[in-house]
Amino acid sequence: MWGMDLNRNLDISLKRQIYQGLRDQMMAGTLKAGDPLPSTRELAKALSVSRNTVNEAYDMLIAEGYVESRQGAPTRVAEGLFLNRERPDPDVTRREPEVVPAFLADFKTGQPDLRQFPRYVWQRAFQKAFSGMSTDLLGYTGPQGLPELREEIAAWLMRSKGLAVDARDIFITAGATQALHLIADLLYAEHQQIMVEDPCNIEMIQTFIQKGYSVIPVPVDAHGIRTEAICKEQHGPVYVTPSHQFPLGGILPASRRAALIRFARFCGSYIIEDDYDSEFRYYGEPASPLYAMAPERVIYIGTFSKVLFPALRIGYVIVPRELQQRWRRLRTYTDVQNPPFEQAALAEMLQTRKFDRHIAKMRKVYRARRQVLLDALKECFGDEWRPWGDAAGLHLAVEFAGTAFNDAFRDQARRNGIRITPVEYHCIRKGLHENKLLLGYGHLEPDDIRQGVYRLLEFMKQAEDG
Amino acid sequence: MWGMDLNRNLDISLKRQIYQGLRDQMMAGTLKAGDPLPSTRELAKALSVSRNTVNEAYDMLIAEGYVESRQGAPTRVAEGLFLNRERPDPDVTRREPEVVPAFLADFKTGQPDLRQFPRYVWQRAFQKAFSGMSTDLLGYTGPQGLPELREEIAAWLMRSKGLAVDARDIFITAGATQALHLIADLLYAEHQQIMVEDPCNIEMIQTFIQKGYSVIPVPVDAHGIRTEAICKEQHGPVYVTPSHQFPLGGILPASRRAALIRFARFCGSYIIEDDYDSEFRYYGEPASPLYAMAPERVIYIGTFSKVLFPALRIGYVIVPRELQQRWRRLRTYTDVQNPPFEQAALAEMLQTRKFDRHIAKMRKVYRARRQVLLDALKECFGDEWRPWGDAAGLHLAVEFAGTAFNDAFRDQARRNGIRITPVEYHCIRKGLHENKLLLGYGHLEPDDIRQGVYRLLEFMKQAEDG
Repeated sequence: MWGMDLNRNLDISLKRQIYQGLRDQMMAGTLKAGDPLPSTRELAKALSVSRNTVNEAYDMLIAEGYVESRQGAPTRVAEGLFLNRERPDPDVTRREPEVVPAFLADFKTGQPDLRQFPRYVWQRAFQKAFSGMSTDLLGYTGPQGLPELREEIAAWLMRSKGLAVDARDIFITAGATQALHLIADLLYAEHQQIMVEDPCNIEMIQTFIQKGYSVIPVPVDAHGIRTEAICKEQHGPVYVTPSHQFPLGGILPASRRAALIRFARFCGSYIIEDDYDSEFRYYGEPASPLYAMAPERVIYIGTFSKVLFPALRIGYVIVPRELQQRWRRLRTYTDVQNPPFEQAALAEMLQTRKFDRHIAKMRKVYRARRQVLLDALKECFGDEWRPWGDAAGLHLAVEFAGTAFNDAFRDQARRNGIRITPVEYHCIRKGLHENKLLLGYGHLEPDDIRQGVYRLLEFMKQAEDG
Repeated sequence: MWGMDLNRNLDISLKRQIYQGLRDQMMAGTLKAGDPLPSTRELAKALSVSRNTVNEAYDMLIAEGYVESRQGAPTRVAEGLFLNRERPDPDVTRREPEVVPAFLADFKTGQPDLRQFPRYVWQRAFQKAFSGMSTDLLGYTGPQGLPELREEIAAWLMRSKGLAVDARDIFITAGATQALHLIADLLYAEHQQIMVEDPCNIEMIQTFIQKGYSVIPVPVDAHGIRTEAICKEQHGPVYVTPSHQFPLGGILPASRRAALIRFARFCGSYIIEDDYDSEFRYYGEPASPLYAMAPERVIYIGTFSKVLFPALRIGYVIVPRELQQRWRRLRTYTDVQNPPFEQAALAEMLQTRKFDRHIAKMRKVYRARRQVLLDALKECFGDEWRPWGDAAGLHLAVEFAGTAFNDAFRDQARRNGIRITPVEYHCIRKGLHENKLLLGYGHLEPDDIRQGVYRLLEFMKQAEDG
């Protein structure tokens, strides 16, 4: 009746079902401009609902302009409602994200061990932070982040890296990726090109590519970016990982650090220092940030994704004063601010030093796993390999003499249940690092590491034979 | 001695103090390239520290390339370290954000009442969500947001607005601002111009301006955007608030909705529907989203900032399928994803319908406050004013016959402790809405509303006399 099947078992009210039934007929042209609707009494009877229900449905149609109602006259369909049903393009189906298969040997990089994360400690910190939280913090509190978290980060930078930073120069972000995204937006007006390490984290530089920057690769050796390869004619920011080069692992020597600073001063630009995992250095102290050399020329990015867990989405940037006002404005119109809960809980963990204890514990865990990986490689590959870089981080770059790893090798390995990353994947200029693989080990148990290396050996033998 | 004052009361270790003391002298040129460092024995004695401490400091200097050490020879300062101290530019001082004074009458807009927020319910939802959370959720789980939250939002859209949406078409964002930011990035390659309502939320369109879009204003009347004023020659997306026009409050009539869809189809573009507060409609049902008319042409933005609290930073977008793959990629390189805790807690509140109860409660609270405001205006201003728009939302647009409100009026009011917003502030073409003010009332207690209106009356009298 009236083209409507009312369903009393739905979560959606009868008046809305009536409203939608009539609306759909108007849009489809079954009810045309000027057509009268049935009286509410008539429709109520036909649909076996109360007249009030129909009245309310008509009120909705009137409020939204589907029908026009005049005293004493029937309610009539408004003009201009007809809309062809657009046939969905058969080529446009919903594209589901790729489903990653489970791997037998999963050497993915950048992955901390989440099972070791002290959930209980975190939950308590969360609760304590929430209980003590002022109601004002549920509103907008500005783009820079909670002052107490910024104070705690400043204190942590001092006690862990000897870095003196004013909390007023620290800006909280939704992780390091957002930090780079904001920096890319911030610097684009002045510099449309950026120099990056080659190889570098190829995922991280996508944000610069998407923004429209020309990306100029600068080669990397065992110590990090080869600053002498930066031409004097170049200009613009330089994006580096001086404490632990990604992916090759070098610690940038002081003379190259000074050269970077001189370059940035020369062309009035900035060095973007991404300190993504320097907390995990296994012999000796964490390397000192480049930022300490020239706070006015370095944009320092820190993150808690690796030391706590990735889904935390808290990073921070030490922003040179010249850029701070623009940064605030930019963040406000990008996504306003971080939520307060994680910030307050993290401040609590830092303040009670539970954060420091977690890092100290994980440093031991990861150091032991790194040793297991080195031992297994020695057992399996004898003298045919050598590790690159400093004893730090959650992955190892390994050079295998006389081999070449490429995309085909990676895909073939994947099909055999092994996830590894050729360094070539992270290279902009191809062909210079074909003999190196990245093995992420931070998230793997010692047994998984050993078995994984044996599987890799077996697979490489097969690949050689095939 | 050796230019170093060690301080045993600092949070920073003695070895790092020694490292930093020597490093600073190398950078300043006091220690020059090739200069030998003292022997570790000599320096340990001079500083009254253990020789081991000095050894560790030297190891740090070696690892970071400040000095070179050869067997049997003294450790010497490396080349190329000297770096002039750059004098900070005296004009560049840290710019602190503006401190907003406390107002005697604070009619700011877009502000829900945070004191009414059920903190205890939220805390319990948080705890429950956290306890049941898989450890996998601490890692990266993809740019689209938690499936259980998206399912709950789809169910909520059905029961509250009769909107049938597949949870796979819903994408969680860090609030509506980020949603607009992502949309601006997504559509820019194809369309460098956008049509917006005039007046509109002038803060929200900053993200389009910053991206480089030409912003084309389309006039608004009591019903919303005047679609007949969009030229056929125009193209590109249209950003609208059809359920409750911001700031004038109209519900867009069905014929204009259909016209918008026809326009988007005609030029192969999209309508961006910002449904920022349609949950708070005080008589009748929430208006039906434009999205229902043409899911393939409408990008729908929903937010929880107004219905729960702004610092939650959770919004969502219903993304047309054609755009979904690019959306995933874009979000990944923007800030990866939202943190999981708020998402899981919100899903819990939706699932238990505590969310629905909170909205039902607040609808009553806000409706009563709106009435208080209307009554107070009548008491104070008699027949000299009229309200604009539908009975909905957290603010009221009021027209005062024969007056003109501008920036000077606003600033003068501020100095008198009254925060109001002239509609002109949100206008792109100036001069068409000078006789209207916006009064935000959602966050104010009835007494504050009454007193605020009396203060406003007094101030307007003074301003007239002065």
